[in-house]
Amino acid sequence: MNNPVLFENLRVVPDFPIPGIQFQDITSLFKNPACIQIMRNEIMDLYKDKGITKVVGLESRGFLLGSMAAADLNAGFVLARKPGKLPGETVSVEYDKEYGKDKICMTSDAIDENDVVLIHDDLLATGGSMKAALELVKLFHPKKVYINVIIELTIEGLHGRDVLEGEDITTLMRV
Amino acid sequence: MNNPVLFENLRVVPDFPIPGIQFQDITSLFKNPACIQIMRNEIMDLYKDKGITKVVGLESRGFLLGSMAAADLNAGFVLARKPGKLPGETVSVEYDKEYGKDKICMTSDAIDENDVVLIHDDLLATGGSMKAALELVKLFHPKKVYINVIIELTIEGLHGRDVLEGEDITTLMRV
Repeated sequence: MNNPVLFENLRVVPDFPIPGIQFQDITSLFKNPACIQIMRNEIMDLYKDKGITKVVGLESRGFLLGSMAAADLNAGFVLARKPGKLPGETVSVEYDKEYGKDKICMTSDAIDENDVVLIHDDLLATGGSMKAALELVKLFHPKKVYINVIIELTIEGLHGRDVLEGEDITTLMRV
Repeated sequence: MNNPVLFENLRVVPDFPIPGIQFQDITSLFKNPACIQIMRNEIMDLYKDKGITKVVGLESRGFLLGSMAAADLNAGFVLARKPGKLPGETVSVEYDKEYGKDKICMTSDAIDENDVVLIHDDLLATGGSMKAALELVKLFHPKKVYINVIIELTIEGLHGRDVLEGEDITTLMRV
């Protein structure tokens, strides 16, 4: 964890998407082949012995390392998306955002009771979307759920870890 | 190409996202670990000797196999996104859609002149977004550009191949 090569290559963009936010730009990590290999190896080391059968990636930056991890772990990959983007029957969970509400959806056959699930996203900040994804996954009653993020923001006022208390979480970088 | 296991697992959803469209639901392929391994092996076989240094994935379903391919090819991965989603300086190309216009963007340091680029998306239909992505990538003057899609739709009235005439294109499935 906290590999210095990842920190050297992580670009921070001030005032994006709104003034006051220091945006942790993970696209700078994926542009770099060495960083990709570090991240996929770290996530493989963390989960190769856990019997993961499904990786759930949160739209859309969670699709990047999430799909690599699914391929390496020989698991299936499930997309957790915003409303209206998935065809057929879906299940969803609504959650509060700073301004208004949002919803996260998966196809209704995405997971079954025999699955061991790894939920992945790029960033853990307030934990709102991850908590909603966790609730959504648990509606399917899988055997076990793990959570992984690339970056955990540990800034005063953010409570991502608290919101997910008691869950099995790993992070590749603490910022 | 045209592996029967992929065809067996490809779900087709009628009338999505609008009436009359037979939606080729590639999420059904990614849910299945065997299909993931077939797709990643096929794309690896096609491009392992091409010296690919960057894989460009089109938002957002092109991020799935695109990022797996980047990891396997030991290349970097670049996101081609809709406007307003990438931080910092970006370059973009506008293109016509059936109703109105759309724009595709990449960060301005995404590619350089020494890169050999593979552009990947899930689906080739009219070819409009892929043509725009190709124009965008060529603004960086890379050494060579390849194109790959999972599914090429070969329906009367679609001219994806024609729009990209003269380009080096491979597809995993013709539907």
